[in-house]
Amino acid sequence: MEVMQVLHMNGGMGETSYANNSLLQRKVILMTKPITEAAATALFSTADTAFHASLAIADLGCSSGPNALFAMSEIITVMINLCKATNHELLEFQVFLNDLPGNDFNTIFAGLLPRFQEKLSEQMKGKYGASATFSCFFNGVPGSFYGRLFARESMHLIHSSYSLHWLSQVPIGIEGNKANIYIARSSPPGVIRAYYEQFQRDFSMFLECRGQELVMGGRMVLTIPGRRSDDPSSKECCSIWELLAIALNEMVSKGLIEEEKLDSFNIPHYTPSPKEVRLEVQKQGSFSIDCLEVSEVNWGVFDSDFDPNVVSEDGGYHLSRCMRAVAEPLLVDHFGEEIIDEVFKRYGAQLAARMSEENPAFVNVAISLKNIA
Amino acid sequence: MEVMQVLHMNGGMGETSYANNSLLQRKVILMTKPITEAAATALFSTADTAFHASLAIADLGCSSGPNALFAMSEIITVMINLCKATNHELLEFQVFLNDLPGNDFNTIFAGLLPRFQEKLSEQMKGKYGASATFSCFFNGVPGSFYGRLFARESMHLIHSSYSLHWLSQVPIGIEGNKANIYIARSSPPGVIRAYYEQFQRDFSMFLECRGQELVMGGRMVLTIPGRRSDDPSSKECCSIWELLAIALNEMVSKGLIEEEKLDSFNIPHYTPSPKEVRLEVQKQGSFSIDCLEVSEVNWGVFDSDFDPNVVSEDGGYHLSRCMRAVAEPLLVDHFGEEIIDEVFKRYGAQLAARMSEENPAFVNVAISLKNIA
Repeated sequence: MEVMQVLHMNGGMGETSYANNSLLQRKVILMTKPITEAAATALFSTADTAFHASLAIADLGCSSGPNALFAMSEIITVMINLCKATNHELLEFQVFLNDLPGNDFNTIFAGLLPRFQEKLSEQMKGKYGASATFSCFFNGVPGSFYGRLFARESMHLIHSSYSLHWLSQVPIGIEGNKANIYIARSSPPGVIRAYYEQFQRDFSMFLECRGQELVMGGRMVLTIPGRRSDDPSSKECCSIWELLAIALNEMVSKGLIEEEKLDSFNIPHYTPSPKEVRLEVQKQGSFSIDCLEVSEVNWGVFDSDFDPNVVSEDGGYHLSRCMRAVAEPLLVDHFGEEIIDEVFKRYGAQLAARMSEENPAFVNVAISLKNIA
Repeated sequence: MEVMQVLHMNGGMGETSYANNSLLQRKVILMTKPITEAAATALFSTADTAFHASLAIADLGCSSGPNALFAMSEIITVMINLCKATNHELLEFQVFLNDLPGNDFNTIFAGLLPRFQEKLSEQMKGKYGASATFSCFFNGVPGSFYGRLFARESMHLIHSSYSLHWLSQVPIGIEGNKANIYIARSSPPGVIRAYYEQFQRDFSMFLECRGQELVMGGRMVLTIPGRRSDDPSSKECCSIWELLAIALNEMVSKGLIEEEKLDSFNIPHYTPSPKEVRLEVQKQGSFSIDCLEVSEVNWGVFDSDFDPNVVSEDGGYHLSRCMRAVAEPLLVDHFGEEIIDEVFKRYGAQLAARMSEENPAFVNVAISLKNIA
């Protein structure tokens, strides 16, 4: 099955997994809020004439969890405030929610949208008076963001958070990665190169497509799980998967997983450095860089109610539930259903052990871009 | 539950019901194809500069059955042929598929779209050569078409078939309709007036919204189940529901349904005459009328493989399955699940009897409009 399809076959996840995962998502969106606000403000003040009365904004990789509308809601709020502050006529919003065709759009449309629209409308009436009408039109857009999704020059602001680390496929030619499942200390140089080149091709194609879709001066804010270090096998981005590899290798040694099965399993994702992100943007040429920032979210985020300095004792459990939401579809597709509970029991133990030893964090690379093509 | 919500809770229908219903839909779309073609051609030749390289088309009330993409596919084919014939650069298409938020968009996106896009792409390469790239971007748009769905002046061609007869609600003040479930010979004048006024309000609001959304010169092709006669209680539009009312009344007399329950049940739909449709368009003022046509589809369409002159002996059975797909959600919401099988057994018998006596037909009012607002 195609990798991108597998990534969204996690419809069977429990609510908790989604919620856990979305806690990280929400935190990341809040952390990058100043960057998004700055991009929206810049768009509003410089390209005012370009979007007349209607503003088209998109979230790429929106998923269908409780945060599917969160980023768009933040941007709309910023824009409404800007309209109010500048006595600008209230904008009409076109919101485009993109994810792979297997995403649960029904849940967004029937489950999340009605209450969201109600809240938005109340918020707006609070600012503009009860008689004000607020127009926000929602669209679901099924498709891979490594191809075109929108008409030429039809978008004003594109947002994507925690999605662009997924590659369009497992890199070709990484047979040498054997017992590893992502780039690791022991990965041969050819494996690391293959991962990086896949990232370059995919990210470049992404920039190319978005460059065509955004109006001149249009903005894009991307947050990608990445690393600070120049070393792609750096612990900060690799150890979360190395611990899963340890769990899988334990199961190989117990005869629960065939060795060849594990040898041929690799995660189709890449965690770039800020330098690599910048380089690709500069090479591709459609965008200028307004801002490039690195931030961190502690692994304990799932227990700590947004306080990154607190790690509860069962952190391994919560983090492993979050990682399960992410990795289960890939594991099931490759190894089958049967091994899953055992894998995540062992993975949870590995995560807990690591968190009790040190204070690991996810590194996020956030970049704000302006379309100059 | 809100009427418009109930109308799309028919996810539990069997495939056959959808397929049966869609046979009628498909036939109607094919019958009105010349009108749609003319509208597309007029748009292409007169408003060429308005849509540059990108054409936005929408289907309102697309549903999620096998025909969800059929109307859009016909329009795209016409446009590709026009591009080819005039040596025009190949257009990019933005396709907007609208239905109520409860519609099964997942089935469209994951089930129907992939093969559809493949076929479209092949068709295009057949015309433009293997190296030609064809861009068609799909969007799901959840919401009632009795409100705004799209940004101002963002649409070029809007299509809707067999959806606009559904009112936004059961008309208020039709308590006097008692044993009837729609307008019938024995309906008091006040009931007929209330139905008509609800149609006027709804259709006028529909025109108002679409007038704002279409570009100047943009086209709209609507097909509405209606009647030829000026009399709203005419057999041609009412008897399909009168026969269901007979089945329900039989069950009241057998004590299977409470009389008050039946008295308070009415179908939220209206079958307008061409005159009523024209009048509303003229009153509302956003559109000029390019064409207004009435056509017929025999009730036996479901058995006859598109030959309207053949009625098979079990026509009642097939037609009742089709009507079940339409009416079951409304009946379940009002009467509960238990009575349904019995209702449709009796309804099927009524339909078969009527079809053996005469050769009844559905009447369609098709109208092609140009935005002049």
